[in-house]
Amino acid sequence: MSDFEEPLHMTPDEFRRRGHEVVDWVADYMANIEQYPVLAQVQPGDIRAKLPPHPPEHPEPFADVLADLDSIIVPGITHWQSPDFFAYFASNATGPAILGDLVSSGLGVQGMAWATSPAATELETHVCDWMVEVMGLPERFLSTSDGGGVIQDSASSGSLVSMLAARHRLGSADAIARMTLYTTAQSNSSIEKSARIAGIPHERVRFIDVDDTFAMRPDALAAAIDADLAAGLVPMAVVATTGTTSSAALDPLHAIADITEAHGLWLHVDGAYAGSATVCPEFRYLNDGLERADSYVFNPHKWLLTNFDCSLLYVADRDALIDALSILPPYLRNQATESGEVIDYRDWQVPLGRRFRALKLWFVLRHYGMAGLRAHIRRHVAWAREFAGWVEADPDFEVVAPVPLALVCFRHTGGDDVNRRILDTCNASGELYLISTVLDDQVVLRLAIGSVTTERRHVEAAWKAITAAAGCVGGSS
Amino acid sequence: MSDFEEPLHMTPDEFRRRGHEVVDWVADYMANIEQYPVLAQVQPGDIRAKLPPHPPEHPEPFADVLADLDSIIVPGITHWQSPDFFAYFASNATGPAILGDLVSSGLGVQGMAWATSPAATELETHVCDWMVEVMGLPERFLSTSDGGGVIQDSASSGSLVSMLAARHRLGSADAIARMTLYTTAQSNSSIEKSARIAGIPHERVRFIDVDDTFAMRPDALAAAIDADLAAGLVPMAVVATTGTTSSAALDPLHAIADITEAHGLWLHVDGAYAGSATVCPEFRYLNDGLERADSYVFNPHKWLLTNFDCSLLYVADRDALIDALSILPPYLRNQATESGEVIDYRDWQVPLGRRFRALKLWFVLRHYGMAGLRAHIRRHVAWAREFAGWVEADPDFEVVAPVPLALVCFRHTGGDDVNRRILDTCNASGELYLISTVLDDQVVLRLAIGSVTTERRHVEAAWKAITAAAGCVGGSS
Repeated sequence: MSDFEEPLHMTPDEFRRRGHEVVDWVADYMANIEQYPVLAQVQPGDIRAKLPPHPPEHPEPFADVLADLDSIIVPGITHWQSPDFFAYFASNATGPAILGDLVSSGLGVQGMAWATSPAATELETHVCDWMVEVMGLPERFLSTSDGGGVIQDSASSGSLVSMLAARHRLGSADAIARMTLYTTAQSNSSIEKSARIAGIPHERVRFIDVDDTFAMRPDALAAAIDADLAAGLVPMAVVATTGTTSSAALDPLHAIADITEAHGLWLHVDGAYAGSATVCPEFRYLNDGLERADSYVFNPHKWLLTNFDCSLLYVADRDALIDALSILPPYLRNQATESGEVIDYRDWQVPLGRRFRALKLWFVLRHYGMAGLRAHIRRHVAWAREFAGWVEADPDFEVVAPVPLALVCFRHTGGDDVNRRILDTCNASGELYLISTVLDDQVVLRLAIGSVTTERRHVEAAWKAITAAAGCVGGSS
Repeated sequence: MSDFEEPLHMTPDEFRRRGHEVVDWVADYMANIEQYPVLAQVQPGDIRAKLPPHPPEHPEPFADVLADLDSIIVPGITHWQSPDFFAYFASNATGPAILGDLVSSGLGVQGMAWATSPAATELETHVCDWMVEVMGLPERFLSTSDGGGVIQDSASSGSLVSMLAARHRLGSADAIARMTLYTTAQSNSSIEKSARIAGIPHERVRFIDVDDTFAMRPDALAAAIDADLAAGLVPMAVVATTGTTSSAALDPLHAIADITEAHGLWLHVDGAYAGSATVCPEFRYLNDGLERADSYVFNPHKWLLTNFDCSLLYVADRDALIDALSILPPYLRNQATESGEVIDYRDWQVPLGRRFRALKLWFVLRHYGMAGLRAHIRRHVAWAREFAGWVEADPDFEVVAPVPLALVCFRHTGGDDVNRRILDTCNASGELYLISTVLDDQVVLRLAIGSVTTERRHVEAAWKAITAAAGCVGGSS
């Protein structure tokens, strides 16, 4: 029935040969990254139209796959590793991270329980503890305390399980049916999505007013909680953000914690973007108040040189998480789990299965050293401040939000339509890629510096391209 | 403040050099895989004790990291890629998959929306459609229908979002507060976990009785639904399994669909393990009734040669999924999304971010061809049947569940304690790794054949080791 009796497994020697080719392919991609248009210049369906309608019946040469990678796939790539990528937040893929990930793929182990690969669990615990030290995080997040850290695929998932723990702590079905969540409209979409998944509908998510820096107003938070309590609802948790997606706004953690502590609410802090900056002492202030948070998430896969997926979640009380998520069927029982001496990370996350993701973070921390992490952050912040200075010096543009880190929110004074056209012109050029957001009901351009390949000259070129686009679309030159 | 002004990024040339070293490391690991004890022979804390307590201040040589990989990490690895790994279900990491994943890491793109990397979305849609053809799945799962496929990190996540879609379809908060879920105690722990996350407490998950093949009894299902309706509860969904984790039991899909259709319930089918087998026409019967399912998940990362994570979720009505999960803040808006012509896969999953996982499946499908996939499945099934024959021929052992695929559930007739001691003896030897489960309240040994490195001789050796262990622990020789 098959044309050969044995499947054509790749031998270790063939893997070695093909592996070198693929490494070379990636190295060439890295070396040539500036040559590509940053934003893929294709229309919907263009890529699929080039792919054969049916899968191959027989094995195809590896060389053909690599050739198609160049001819079919790359033209449809938006190059997140480009030095001219200033959209969203960067998603750093560095050499040591990629190679740590390659080892993880090669080992192919499941880290769902300590017993299913002890090193996967113990290295994860270890690097999470290391990061507490590197970033000056509260001791309650250490594995040697009642809390601890875990690597999630994304801040979305970390925020979700935090909310599930908070929900579980409410206890009664009656309370759960009336639970409310507090955040701001500036928080990431993953917060409302997590709330929805946890069973908190849109009408019971309170988007608290923000101040003129787009940070949560504690007085408005207190008032909203009081109103909900008076209405017989059950306030469950507050999600504060250090470094919002739109504008890197910083919610005031201490003032918020005063309120969550008074009411016994779960405080979750989303530092997905800004967290990485706290490897530098001068940005350590961003963590002020975290010692009063129940959970905290930040993404090394954004700005800490580790490729997606690598998001660190810390909790102050790991039992709250485990109680909410643990299920132990017979086929998962083992002596180590029953001894209570080990961590089984499957109970700290949504999925049962898990990759050995600690390896890539370990590779990064050792390759760069702590001094290297700090240097990486500092130059981006310095360039962002320089860019903000150029914007401020141009009478046609204005900076519209504080620039605590490496994200600059700015706009042309000519109105929303001019800004939209500047954006489209820049992105269509392929020379750089940035996105817009809305702040105070106005279209705002965002320049997020974060690619490891970006140098100061790319930031300069971005500003030139933006001002040139402004000239072309009638917003003066 | 830092000791050098520039972070020590790995240049493309250094990546090429180090990358070749890491590929060689993985190739050597593959070549030497039989030398390691399958189950890590370490105690809790052994690995951490060898790691330095503090992260390095300065960069460390890459060679030191690779050396520590050998001396610290590998001894704590349970070798899932070993030919003697017969525990859980295998987690195939093949050469082409690892290399596809390496390209994904190197490109470092986010596939959260079509616009953020069109090729990532379009290749994913394409390979999901290919798999419909390869496995003879219903046409309603094609992207050209109202449904479609998506790659999730795990069946856990695919089952969760299916349940969220089912919950969303219930509509009213009142119905949601009374929703019930139907499955069997044989379904994977991820099903109860998904239910719990979706807000269905343990006491409203009905574990329907199974027959003597451990498959769901439709009459018991119908009775449970009737009882719940009579009690004013709101039946929401049935989760059926093709190939349960404990014993590869096959729930009868058509008989179950008769009931779900009569009551308008969501039918989710978990084929995480068995699904891969349906690349072979002779196992296509496992899909009978899937054309009546609302959602279906199976894991190429188990038995289809693609390394974790790669789980395919298909839905018959993609709008049900998107309505349940979509949130569109200003910073995610773009022309392509607003045109409605593209898929934004972030709305098909829990996290916002997503890797370009289609690449590794594409590499696998092209490297093996469909004929290769079939050959891969067939030899495992043949060996499992042979192993079951040896068990049946031995008066001290018995096969305790049907063997439709490559999982054999068996036990020594000497009782639970003898079986536990056989298990511990085998696993402590490092010569093979298998786990136990509980069926009909008895401890049962599971031999799951699925590693790509396994040959017939390893299965023979496993049987010899098991019978030898039985002799040692007093269960006769």
